[in-house]
Amino acid sequence: MLINHCTGRWAPISIKKKVSIAVVRRLPRYYRYLADLLNSGINRISSKELSERMGITASQIRQDLNCFGGFGQQGYGYNVESLYKEIGRILGLDNNFQTIIIGAGNMGRALANYKNFEKRGFKLIGIFDKDPKVVGQKINDLDVRHIDDLQKFTQENKVDIAMLCVPHDETPIVAEKAAACGIKGLWNFSPMELKLSHSNVNKNIVIENVHLSDSLMVLGYKINEMMKANKNELPR
Amino acid sequence: MLINHCTGRWAPISIKKKVSIAVVRRLPRYYRYLADLLNSGINRISSKELSERMGITASQIRQDLNCFGGFGQQGYGYNVESLYKEIGRILGLDNNFQTIIIGAGNMGRALANYKNFEKRGFKLIGIFDKDPKVVGQKINDLDVRHIDDLQKFTQENKVDIAMLCVPHDETPIVAEKAAACGIKGLWNFSPMELKLSHSNVNKNIVIENVHLSDSLMVLGYKINEMMKANKNELPR
Repeated sequence: MLINHCTGRWAPISIKKKVSIAVVRRLPRYYRYLADLLNSGINRISSKELSERMGITASQIRQDLNCFGGFGQQGYGYNVESLYKEIGRILGLDNNFQTIIIGAGNMGRALANYKNFEKRGFKLIGIFDKDPKVVGQKINDLDVRHIDDLQKFTQENKVDIAMLCVPHDETPIVAEKAAACGIKGLWNFSPMELKLSHSNVNKNIVIENVHLSDSLMVLGYKINEMMKANKNELPR
Repeated sequence: MLINHCTGRWAPISIKKKVSIAVVRRLPRYYRYLADLLNSGINRISSKELSERMGITASQIRQDLNCFGGFGQQGYGYNVESLYKEIGRILGLDNNFQTIIIGAGNMGRALANYKNFEKRGFKLIGIFDKDPKVVGQKINDLDVRHIDDLQKFTQENKVDIAMLCVPHDETPIVAEKAAACGIKGLWNFSPMELKLSHSNVNKNIVIENVHLSDSLMVLGYKINEMMKANKNELPR
């Protein structure tokens, strides 16, 4: 029995409330930091220490982590391993997700070379393209397959996620094709808010749109604030 | 004079509180949606309508947008153009930021081909690499330059941002080099929490680390929740 800081009552750790998407979006960052702590052999950490490492307030950490069960104990702090495992479980990382890349251009190849995804439990098992000059090439031990073979491939292999790295105009068509093959999640790199048409098939698919320019705009904000703080103007 | 929903008092629009980084991280998304509305000729929108389009609560929108001045007026809603301009101003997008890419591998090339950055006010003016086989190649009308020419280039051109697309091990060295050249912001694509050593030079630089796997983990969460909702288990 641990105290649930959201309700102020003692509650068993298994009682979980629905986690808001805003909190969920912060969980991967906790997960990465906890992984680093584990790798450094640190097994216990206070919200104050974690706060200093991560550069966010201790109160934010307590709010985020205590709302889906009571992980922290007053005077003890957090058990790094259980917190790490629990966040992984909430994120569904124990599902052994299998992924494919559609579009073997620069972005597709860059993603194929990212070592971190497999470490987080996402295994790349196929790469697809429509260009005959690219089909058959090897990227990281995987042969690039023709997009027309997607259906057969998804019948023979469990494919959970398609990373969409195709040009803007082609993205909606490729997305519908992936949905029709029973793929459950689309990770879209085309700079658009991808939405699928309403259909029974599309009830069983979720989308995460990557908007790289959002992160660039946040950097712009940080520069602007720094310049203001330095009482310095950007030279025009 | 408009009502400030944070304080409940009437306040001139120019009185702005310090915006929290959590709110700042949501601003680019508002900015994109408002740009789309403007492009569709929509000049006025209620928080309810905006909420339906963006899939977030109207109360969250009011909280986010009203905290840096009073944009909304009861019974009128938001003026799309002023809100769009004001968010752009807060994000510092009127600074005409100039960017370079360091590392002309797949990720660097993918970023060079992104059309959206310039639309948001970030102009790419140079690409650098250390590989003699790559130096001199043309990517989108820009010659790839040797990294040794970085200092001279930054003396001759205003460079605000370096997009770091170099291998993991090389990232800290390249980052220090960019900082020494007076570059103000680093956009880091290497999967690490890049930090610079404490020095006078490094007080004048800010970093935005892109962790692509964070977004992939959020997709994993969404799939997991969908599967639970469908009372369906992932086949193992």
